Amino acid sequence: MTEHTVSAYGEELTTIAGLIAEMGGLAEDIVSNAVSALMRQDLELAQETILKDARLDELLLDIEMRNVQVIARRQPMGQDLREIMAAGRIANDLERVGDMAKNVAKRVIAMDAGLKSKTLSIGVEHMTELALSQLKNVLDAYTRRNAEEARLVRDRDSEVDAIYTSLFRELLTYMMEDPRNITQCAHLLFCAKNIERIGDHATNIAENVFYMVTGDRLTEDRPRMDETGVMDKEDA
Amino acid sequence: MTEHTVSAYGEELTTIAGLIAEMGGLAEDIVSNAVSALMRQDLELAQETILKDARLDELLLDIEMRNVQVIARRQPMGQDLREIMAAGRIANDLERVGDMAKNVAKRVIAMDAGLKSKTLSIGVEHMTELALSQLKNVLDAYTRRNAEEARLVRDRDSEVDAIYTSLFRELLTYMMEDPRNITQCAHLLFCAKNIERIGDHATNIAENVFYMVTGDRLTEDRPRMDETGVMDKEDA
Repeated sequence: MTEHTVSAYGEELTTIAGLIAEMGGLAEDIVSNAVSALMRQDLELAQETILKDARLDELLLDIEMRNVQVIARRQPMGQDLREIMAAGRIANDLERVGDMAKNVAKRVIAMDAGLKSKTLSIGVEHMTELALSQLKNVLDAYTRRNAEEARLVRDRDSEVDAIYTSLFRELLTYMMEDPRNITQCAHLLFCAKNIERIGDHATNIAENVFYMVTGDRLTEDRPRMDETGVMDKEDA
Repeated sequence: MTEHTVSAYGEELTTIAGLIAEMGGLAEDIVSNAVSALMRQDLELAQETILKDARLDELLLDIEMRNVQVIARRQPMGQDLREIMAAGRIANDLERVGDMAKNVAKRVIAMDAGLKSKTLSIGVEHMTELALSQLKNVLDAYTRRNAEEARLVRDRDSEVDAIYTSLFRELLTYMMEDPRNITQCAHLLFCAKNIERIGDHATNIAENVFYMVTGDRLTEDRPRMDETGVMDKEDA
């Protein structure tokens, strides 16, 4: 952050960064709880997780209003403007991470403790660990204003995508083996897709952190490949 | 729009509203083309649709930068501020509508003209017609600053949800009948989910139009129910 002659201004930016950190911690919790609820088929934890997500929506609105006030009052330029724009975008991505986790929690309730085999959901758990570590790393990169750490997160998204692709195929195999697996596996397909998209949001955040810190775009095209097998740079 | 002593200001707001209208028209085209590509298994049209989506991303960035400039220069309040905040949010929803349509187009390529029975995709086409009419109506409500039309769009989202729920069940039945349908139906499940979410984005836009015009929130809880059977107010 550049030094500010008006110290109240620096405080405003610090408050916004603090709210982002709060959203980040909460988003990690919600993702972790949603997948625990899935693994344990814990309907109560799923319900709690759905309720918790509302706080992320409130924090997003709060950050948006503060951003508008800072822009109107200070007419920020350069690094300061990038900081504010990045905060708005990162807050949006974190709110969507919460939505993805909420979708998983809702599926737990829909499955109504009907997930017979833990094998079916173990791949989702493994993918979640990786997506959560991506989310944690990118939030650290934001706090430390570290562009290199942000780039590393961006580069590792292909690992989440690869796990997702193999999981997609695995779930289809289970469906083909026994039609009684079809309903549960259809729900798990959507859970897996939601987790894969959490990885995409971590990548979006990484790109915003990199731009905020350096003023440059992470330009090399990072081809994304999902189970559709269609290359794509962005697929949120 | 309130009268502006500085007429350049009014022009700035009109330009932003024009860019939203451009995004809206483009989003409608992309959705319509993506589903045509699905119905006809037209790989070329699918590829074109994916490329077209990039323009929505550019328009979103343009609107965001213009919003920041207007806020910094004019310190808008009340109706004008609502107008600018709504434009930013609506642009975000339209960009995501494009992403959803792009996802459908990518699945067409993944299915590689392998959709044997048109019956399987006819439900998706029917749901798309409704989602597109929702999108068209809410864009008209935005252009006419008509809160009542926006409310009607919000109230009709449950019809899209209902079609989606019945389609979800129907696709599972096809999977159970013949394992050879499983891969294609899994792709169609995701297509259907993407279209259902286009309906959700139309609803978000409707809520923003209503707030922009009236300054009030559409408060009555509109319970959303999807195929998970879990009630939820927001599920984007």
